[in-house]
Amino acid sequence: MTGDFSSEEARRLWLALPTADVEAVLSRALAEDTGWGDITTATTVEPDWPGQARIVARQEGVLAGAWVAEAVFDLVDADLTVALLAADGEPVRPGQTVLEARGSAASILTGERVALNFVQRLSGVASLARRYAEAVAGLPVRIVDTRKTTPGLRLLEKYAVRAGGAHNHRFNLADAILIKDNHLQAAANAGRGLAEVVALARARAPHTLKIQVEVETLDQAREALAAGADALLLDNMSLADLRAAVELAAGRVQLEASGGITLDRVRAVAQTGVDLISVGALTHSAPALDFSLDFEPG
Amino acid sequence: MTGDFSSEEARRLWLALPTADVEAVLSRALAEDTGWGDITTATTVEPDWPGQARIVARQEGVLAGAWVAEAVFDLVDADLTVALLAADGEPVRPGQTVLEARGSAASILTGERVALNFVQRLSGVASLARRYAEAVAGLPVRIVDTRKTTPGLRLLEKYAVRAGGAHNHRFNLADAILIKDNHLQAAANAGRGLAEVVALARARAPHTLKIQVEVETLDQAREALAAGADALLLDNMSLADLRAAVELAAGRVQLEASGGITLDRVRAVAQTGVDLISVGALTHSAPALDFSLDFEPG
Amino acid sequence: MTGDFSSEEARRLWLALPTADVEAVLSRALAEDTGWGDITTATTVEPDWPGQARIVARQEGVLAGAWVAEAVFDLVDADLTVALLAADGEPVRPGQTVLEARGSAASILTGERVALNFVQRLSGVASLARRYAEAVAGLPVRIVDTRKTTPGLRLLEKYAVRAGGAHNHRFNLADAILIKDNHLQAAANAGRGLAEVVALARARAPHTLKIQVEVETLDQAREALAAGADALLLDNMSLADLRAAVELAAGRVQLEASGGITLDRVRAVAQTGVDLISVGALTHSAPALDFSLDFEPG
Amino acid sequence: MTGDFSSEEARRLWLALPTADVEAVLSRALAEDTGWGDITTATTVEPDWPGQARIVARQEGVLAGAWVAEAVFDLVDADLTVALLAADGEPVRPGQTVLEARGSAASILTGERVALNFVQRLSGVASLARRYAEAVAGLPVRIVDTRKTTPGLRLLEKYAVRAGGAHNHRFNLADAILIKDNHLQAAANAGRGLAEVVALARARAPHTLKIQVEVETLDQAREALAAGADALLLDNMSLADLRAAVELAAGRVQLEASGGITLDRVRAVAQTGVDLISVGALTHSAPALDFSLDFEPG
Amino acid sequence: MTGDFSSEEARRLWLALPTADVEAVLSRALAEDTGWGDITTATTVEPDWPGQARIVARQEGVLAGAWVAEAVFDLVDADLTVALLAADGEPVRPGQTVLEARGSAASILTGERVALNFVQRLSGVASLARRYAEAVAGLPVRIVDTRKTTPGLRLLEKYAVRAGGAHNHRFNLADAILIKDNHLQAAANAGRGLAEVVALARARAPHTLKIQVEVETLDQAREALAAGADALLLDNMSLADLRAAVELAAGRVQLEASGGITLDRVRAVAQTGVDLISVGALTHSAPALDFSLDFEPG
Amino acid sequence: MTGDFSSEEARRLWLALPTADVEAVLSRALAEDTGWGDITTATTVEPDWPGQARIVARQEGVLAGAWVAEAVFDLVDADLTVALLAADGEPVRPGQTVLEARGSAASILTGERVALNFVQRLSGVASLARRYAEAVAGLPVRIVDTRKTTPGLRLLEKYAVRAGGAHNHRFNLADAILIKDNHLQAAANAGRGLAEVVALARARAPHTLKIQVEVETLDQAREALAAGADALLLDNMSLADLRAAVELAAGRVQLEASGGITLDRVRAVAQTGVDLISVGALTHSAPALDFSLDFEPG
Repeated sequence: MTGDFSSEEARRLWLALPTADVEAVLSRALAEDTGWGDITTATTVEPDWPGQARIVARQEGVLAGAWVAEAVFDLVDADLTVALLAADGEPVRPGQTVLEARGSAASILTGERVALNFVQRLSGVASLARRYAEAVAGLPVRIVDTRKTTPGLRLLEKYAVRAGGAHNHRFNLADAILIKDNHLQAAANAGRGLAEVVALARARAPHTLKIQVEVETLDQAREALAAGADALLLDNMSLADLRAAVELAAGRVQLEASGGITLDRVRAVAQTGVDLISVGALTHSAPALDFSLDFEPG
Repeated sequence: MTGDFSSEEARRLWLALPTADVEAVLSRALAEDTGWGDITTATTVEPDWPGQARIVARQEGVLAGAWVAEAVFDLVDADLTVALLAADGEPVRPGQTVLEARGSAASILTGERVALNFVQRLSGVASLARRYAEAVAGLPVRIVDTRKTTPGLRLLEKYAVRAGGAHNHRFNLADAILIKDNHLQAAANAGRGLAEVVALARARAPHTLKIQVEVETLDQAREALAAGADALLLDNMSLADLRAAVELAAGRVQLEASGGITLDRVRAVAQTGVDLISVGALTHSAPALDFSLDFEPG
Repeated sequence: MTGDFSSEEARRLWLALPTADVEAVLSRALAEDTGWGDITTATTVEPDWPGQARIVARQEGVLAGAWVAEAVFDLVDADLTVALLAADGEPVRPGQTVLEARGSAASILTGERVALNFVQRLSGVASLARRYAEAVAGLPVRIVDTRKTTPGLRLLEKYAVRAGGAHNHRFNLADAILIKDNHLQAAANAGRGLAEVVALARARAPHTLKIQVEVETLDQAREALAAGADALLLDNMSLADLRAAVELAAGRVQLEASGGITLDRVRAVAQTGVDLISVGALTHSAPALDFSLDFEPG
Repeated sequence: MTGDFSSEEARRLWLALPTADVEAVLSRALAEDTGWGDITTATTVEPDWPGQARIVARQEGVLAGAWVAEAVFDLVDADLTVALLAADGEPVRPGQTVLEARGSAASILTGERVALNFVQRLSGVASLARRYAEAVAGLPVRIVDTRKTTPGLRLLEKYAVRAGGAHNHRFNLADAILIKDNHLQAAANAGRGLAEVVALARARAPHTLKIQVEVETLDQAREALAAGADALLLDNMSLADLRAAVELAAGRVQLEASGGITLDRVRAVAQTGVDLISVGALTHSAPALDFSLDFEPG
Repeated sequence: MTGDFSSEEARRLWLALPTADVEAVLSRALAEDTGWGDITTATTVEPDWPGQARIVARQEGVLAGAWVAEAVFDLVDADLTVALLAADGEPVRPGQTVLEARGSAASILTGERVALNFVQRLSGVASLARRYAEAVAGLPVRIVDTRKTTPGLRLLEKYAVRAGGAHNHRFNLADAILIKDNHLQAAANAGRGLAEVVALARARAPHTLKIQVEVETLDQAREALAAGADALLLDNMSLADLRAAVELAAGRVQLEASGGITLDRVRAVAQTGVDLISVGALTHSAPALDFSLDFEPG
Repeated sequence: MTGDFSSEEARRLWLALPTADVEAVLSRALAEDTGWGDITTATTVEPDWPGQARIVARQEGVLAGAWVAEAVFDLVDADLTVALLAADGEPVRPGQTVLEARGSAASILTGERVALNFVQRLSGVASLARRYAEAVAGLPVRIVDTRKTTPGLRLLEKYAVRAGGAHNHRFNLADAILIKDNHLQAAANAGRGLAEVVALARARAPHTLKIQVEVETLDQAREALAAGADALLLDNMSLADLRAAVELAAGRVQLEASGGITLDRVRAVAQTGVDLISVGALTHSAPALDFSLDFEPG
């Protein structure tokens, strides 16, 4: 439907997500909105009235969640016909129709709010991800998300990050080993140092998992490299220190910059030569992108 | 724990929420974050190491979600001891500790991210609600939320709105009858006018439900009043029109102003004399309030 | 399918009920009846034998649950063809076929008991509701149900009440505020009077909810009216007191009579001028209406 | 707590029922009654007010469901103290207190209706079962229930039947083989006779299951006996035919009389010598037994 | 599809199993294998590439689980076309294709492992069951399974036992009464003997259930027969004792031999005249039968 | 409880597994075994009889599942006291008691079979894993499991593998990227070669995941190494080819040997210098280890 790169990547991740889990998220959203029934629609809109409505963007940004909205309408009423006029990952402008639904007017009304809530939130995430991605355009770096996602929506928010053109960090605590400051503090309290911690993780964990270590200083970075970490999380480091870390690593391990990454500062961070820049705000503070659902007269 | 009014109201709503539903939301959040297991902690932190950690505010705002965080740690490990040092609904300042957890270091580490994700999001909502509530302080009006909530988190976000000092609109489609523009458009397409729609809702729906009608003009407002609506939703009206609507209604029905309500404009809207001002942004666009979890040395 | 008013209202409520919740009730009923399998049918009826059967009324009454039965057969075997020969809300007479099922004989046999159990119970409720509704025919009053429903079947029993031609009271504790004698007793124990209780409910609850107060004497009724209640529940009052309450209220609030409402007495109660008469027996003591499922020879 | 035989048998079955299944039924009942929250109680009863209430019988009958009510209050608030003053299976008289609850007044109010709904329905079933059991007192026969139970409540209703002093037929379609008229009709349509049907069931089903055959005439009874059935269901037979069937069977198989068994007729049926009399009305048409929950002043 | 007797019996049981329960087992298996997504397939196989693959036997044995595999692929992607080339219950030889799947290459890859895991395990069970069944061919005895099944797979493993040509013992603790040594020990500890135990079970349990008693000596067998047991479980008896028990029972009750039944010994046990021989190894120790899924070039 | 290395590793993984998921597996196992109730125990063992029983090993092997058995008894009756006399991962010999349970005799009887089913299966897996681990003792290689686990039991079986002293491969399809022969065939069908496939996976997948490629020849191994794979799966290679692959890789990537790894051959494979040897039989074909539960007299 589009040649846009992020759209293709969004589609790839969308198809990989477990259908049953995604459908469960949507069903729960409908249940929480419906209560024992949409009594307004039931009493004011006859069940056999046909209807036609459009989801229209009211702000400029990047679309994400159109397939989700389609799935919401399908759960409400499998007889609705839904056409997507834009693909997730594509830019939208105010007034642009992204989805058309036809069928029972009552069904469209019952699904309206939940469909919009998903599109608004996910497009908000994708739009912010796009801004970060564009800020580092041309540089060999990935903007990645974090685990600072909205409880219950991790799969969909990570999907929206991809639709925006950024990349995904680990999905959950079992995906990868990330030894953070608090792990190191707990170990230090028991007299165990960084090198020993990394060695134990290597010995005990499945061989399939990479080991990343969070460091705050160059000394720690050196220690982690010596300990055999596969990747470093460089937390809240100055640009100078980031550059020094890049030099230290010399391409042998993945380097991720993290902490206080604003749009203003992200390109400078990228120019230090790190491989990855993680941005929690992508999912925890993206404002909704405004959309409305408009019924057609007639 | 506090004499703060919003804290008391927050507690009231918290206790009214169905425990099983809230716990299900928390359990799913933990499951989505854990995957098949927190392998970093399992391999680097011995199960019997004691730990002590604090959740600390990093920004100024209003706390919400501390009881949620406590419940998260309880789900991870019922043997953790959690002490709340601030109550939901209370203001927090950077550096303030709001929660202390003691017990298995591993358990604290496993629950950390999910606990923080809830506190950050809910405090974000409460903080924005507080700003709106303070902007209309002293006026006989309620700031109310909408159904534009994050899918899956409606109960908790409406709770956070109360913690911020604002009020709740209906929780779901079965709580009240709200005849919106799209219902009226669907009815109009079938040749049925506003008065007839209101009369049918009255005749068909349970007598326990109030009937609110969305109107965009004073003429529609007059028509809805004549039709016997219990409340009007005045959508995107000018201040002058809002004032005129207040005069028309003369205290007989509830008047709610809605649409484009910014912090700059909300007091002027309140001064028109409407009873309620609904603000979607409270839940769809509140940025997270920053908190961290810090392990104690020792 | 019918011009009968209750049928239309039944259909309206049926379509408003959350499909997933209703299907869950049916699936659980099938699971509880099936255990690990219908071994009688499996061993005595070959899977490819065609069958045809009818659900036939054995008593006079009002039909409710035919759509439920259809849904049950659909859950058992989506390839069954089910035709409804009567609509929920219509009167049935002994010997009348209300549903025909064709397809796998084994599937019909496996679904038989569950389908009948629903039709029998719901038609029992609808039939009793119809008798009450007819007893007050022509008077401006609604017969309404209560929360004294069969655990797990509230949605379906309230649906059956509508099919019978009566109306629904609140569906659950979140739909409306009903301050009952026990709430007032608890408040009195703490030194809080009726007026204060009503004022607090008004201040704390969402503005969308009506406030009804249960009263047992005219003095209490006066107090509740003065406190600004939206509706009164007149519990176990004499006809004289009911008439006096109607005079007191003078049309400003909804009046509901309740307690010991028999078929013999209901019209006299209605003639006092109350707006609503609630009858717990509609759902807690309606005997089943008899139906059988008969296989066709051939 | 009691020497009453039905009480002991009720307790035995109660302890055998799967706890998780029973708790699921109760939790669903609470969820359906609570909606998003008990807003009346939340706004009118302070969370820390103590309360004390009694469940009091308002009619004469047999108690069943007191343990269920206790479990309901425990689900609402594990800190409530509940004392049972009567055991399931015992007779109750108007005014008798059967349960006392102490603790949070709010929690008692929130659980009240669900607790009562279970006690009223189950005691209704037990009371009717007791009347049937007493009608055949002294005769070597069991009154048994059927699968005509309320959808979702089979375990609890069969438990109430035992509390009433009657016995249980199979719990579900996997418990036993019961070849009914419709199975025989389906087989006949395919040219397969009763003897062949019984032989196939014997050959194909687990050896652990008894095979019962429904017959309507003495000829069929003879045929079923010859075919090696373990039990006969004598459907709608005259007393004379029942006596003849008893003579035919000569104690070799279990004989169950069924169909149109009223309280007036049940003793005469029992006197024919059948082993079992099944009564669908025990569960499908027992009226509720009236109970109330009364808050104590103080 | 086959005239094989075990195939027909497998199909009969398969159709009797509750569809929802079976589908739940399959869905959970897919969820546990998929995690948050099949990222290998998502990144290396384009969603629109067609594919064609075969499940091929790598060992000689009896097929079971082909319908399960088909259902697995259907759950992964309803648009896959699956053709079964062999029926459950039929013998397979190395190299034989039993199933062909066509459609999205990605979907086939995502379902591959789960489909194979079911086929391998269930065919392993069926193959071992077939060897036992063949070992007693021609003798009037049934090889039956036990409750020593893999947790969560009881329905499917009992199905595989039937596909292998053996029979099913009870499915769960509610199907039949089996008084085992530990029950008798518990009773003996309280001074209650075998005869009393059997009498109490008869008096208290539903009349629909058979009563089987586990005995280890001929004296116990005599005691159980005298007590009126419907069946005996002869545990770990010598061939001589088994023959003696057969003589004692004289065809009045079912006799089941159990304990240490190897393939070498099973025919000798059968020749003692017992009715049933139970073999726990059928489900707890059957090795998997090897199958592979091979993609077609093209 | 033990200084045994596998015991410690087992405990580590056990504590990392998501409690709710494990408990769900156990609850389902109990539900499937119980049906509507343990009627044998209910009718023959009085609820207040005390009991004491032991789980005793009947074969030599390695224990796994003792904590599972403890959890099963806890789910059946939280008042049971369970003492473990051996830890998972420890060797057991015939006659050794591994667990003692005290409390309600009825509860122990109801949980017996499910507890044993878990212990028998998991100890079977651990025992086989131990034999493989011992076969390569002293060599720098890990025996690892596969995804050929019993559907529904993956977490517990991978836990048992660790208890046996072997290691875990990926837990699910999202843990790591493993490009298998079928992925490569699907890609080849579309004209895409191995190098391109690896490059695409690298570009599209989260950077946290390692990329492993299955190869069958040395040429493919060279191609995969050149393409930048992180690990190779050497499928069904001769010892000579394995040695050659080890030389090729020169320690830069992980090498896993797979296919037809018997106990006889495993040490020779390990001596080629590969890092990992995966054995499907650990989970798909381990026979149960025999245990019994014995009631104490008294």
